[in-house]
Amino acid sequence: MSVTSTTVLEPHALETGRDVRLFARSNPCPNTSGLAPTYLQANLIILPSKYASDFRLLCARNPVPCPLIAESSNPGRWDSVRSHVPGLDGPAVLTDVDIRNDAPKYNVYKDSKLVKSGCLNIVEEWTDDHVAFIIGCSFSFESALARAGLTPLHTTLKRNVPMYRTTIPLSPAGVFTGSTFVVSMRPYRMSDIPRVRDITRVFSATHGEPLAWGWQAMEALGIEDIHSPQWGDAPIALDGTPLGRLSQYDDLVPVFWGCGVTPQEAVMRANLEGVAMAHSPGYMLLLDCKDSDITS
Amino acid sequence: MSVTSTTVLEPHALETGRDVRLFARSNPCPNTSGLAPTYLQANLIILPSKYASDFRLLCARNPVPCPLIAESSNPGRWDSVRSHVPGLDGPAVLTDVDIRNDAPKYNVYKDSKLVKSGCLNIVEEWTDDHVAFIIGCSFSFESALARAGLTPLHTTLKRNVPMYRTTIPLSPAGVFTGSTFVVSMRPYRMSDIPRVRDITRVFSATHGEPLAWGWQAMEALGIEDIHSPQWGDAPIALDGTPLGRLSQYDDLVPVFWGCGVTPQEAVMRANLEGVAMAHSPGYMLLLDCKDSDITS
Repeated sequence: MSVTSTTVLEPHALETGRDVRLFARSNPCPNTSGLAPTYLQANLIILPSKYASDFRLLCARNPVPCPLIAESSNPGRWDSVRSHVPGLDGPAVLTDVDIRNDAPKYNVYKDSKLVKSGCLNIVEEWTDDHVAFIIGCSFSFESALARAGLTPLHTTLKRNVPMYRTTIPLSPAGVFTGSTFVVSMRPYRMSDIPRVRDITRVFSATHGEPLAWGWQAMEALGIEDIHSPQWGDAPIALDGTPLGRLSQYDDLVPVFWGCGVTPQEAVMRANLEGVAMAHSPGYMLLLDCKDSDITS
Repeated sequence: MSVTSTTVLEPHALETGRDVRLFARSNPCPNTSGLAPTYLQANLIILPSKYASDFRLLCARNPVPCPLIAESSNPGRWDSVRSHVPGLDGPAVLTDVDIRNDAPKYNVYKDSKLVKSGCLNIVEEWTDDHVAFIIGCSFSFESALARAGLTPLHTTLKRNVPMYRTTIPLSPAGVFTGSTFVVSMRPYRMSDIPRVRDITRVFSATHGEPLAWGWQAMEALGIEDIHSPQWGDAPIALDGTPLGRLSQYDDLVPVFWGCGVTPQEAVMRANLEGVAMAHSPGYMLLLDCKDSDITS
């Protein structure tokens, strides 16, 4: 199904990454979990060009939370990218894109402080000096989990994935110091975790296998309250009760992956000058490449 | 100066990485800090081939503590390697090498437990199934620091660099779960840290810029006692007094880098079957390539 200006669509019926981008360009669009299955979903971070080389180094040093897929082909270019994935060129990642419009929602930062969230576009804020970075998202492996009968609970419940700050430090890079990993969480049975690890391991450009799992991982990651994620929706079981050690779903344990919200945290901790932008967590930019293009 | 069978040499007079290898092949050799300046020094980890792909992934996910430079060209080959550094081929990394003999000292692990340390060679333990991995070492940037007037204290004092276990988790990869970063430490004045960061940043194949600095970094890294490193020599000031907040050298603070002993920790935590081997911390394998070949 392709999108035309006269088509009115339910977003979950959109088939390709391009369909979702064109839809989001001119319509309100929900969080993108489960949209256009098998098409890659991406985190966006958009920085003044003077911070670009330090940011590339931050990604190189922290590939699990910050897997860099592509960046603007030149500063100021919002319509074409160059790829950082071997064997994949820029047009294969994104063609017919408007990075300022095609994510469903955006955040805007000024001098490292969040000044707007949930905007529908960033046309006003974008300048000729901005560089957009496109970073892998764990939504990309959710369709592979679903194909194996391991559909994430938040997908079934049509909720956003819960995301948490941790105390695990990023390896610093230039101006980017003092930041920590952000993680996403999907609950699974302990007995399913070896399969969950195996399925997600090959998605090296979209966070790969989990960082940690089980209730004891909460302390290791410095997460105090599973019911209070910093982004996304609180985790609940199928019957709507909160997930927890004492619920009737107590065979479910939390499983944590690196999360592409990490670079937004890094921007907020870095005392950057000027305007930075990003997608709103959960409201991703859809790409033209598919999960099979980036699995290793 | 080249090494021949009749030359008797003080190791600090050896000029090239090959000179140090040939010397260590048949002579007792001290820790390699400061030997053959500008030649790369490397950590070794040698595993049964069935663990090779998981180990490569561990390095890809944790490039700061585990920067993979090269590996055996095939299982069982101790005399040639293939490179993982773009633009550098295997022979440029190592020619005329005997990986079983050319590090000054080795450790041997059986079923993930250390069973021998400080052996002069691993000829008996090596089999046709072993794969050697060559991992960057922070000794490689010490000559760059020295050229800038920032010679590390342990080099001046001819001591081994202190190395510490931390509580910072590695991103797991297959069988390699539950391990943490190991760090090396060099004290500097707080006012010198921006230059120390700038100088070491480009050494991306040998741990790059520091992970953390200042006394408050001890808590962040989970290091309890600066005077009790798990490997290497305890840090002391130029007059031999222990380094500390209250010493007359209290303008010196600890600066921590990723350390290539990390993979040995990962082996010990991984419940591997069979025999694994490594260099002894501080007693590195010298390479044929120079720091200028791998700076980015």
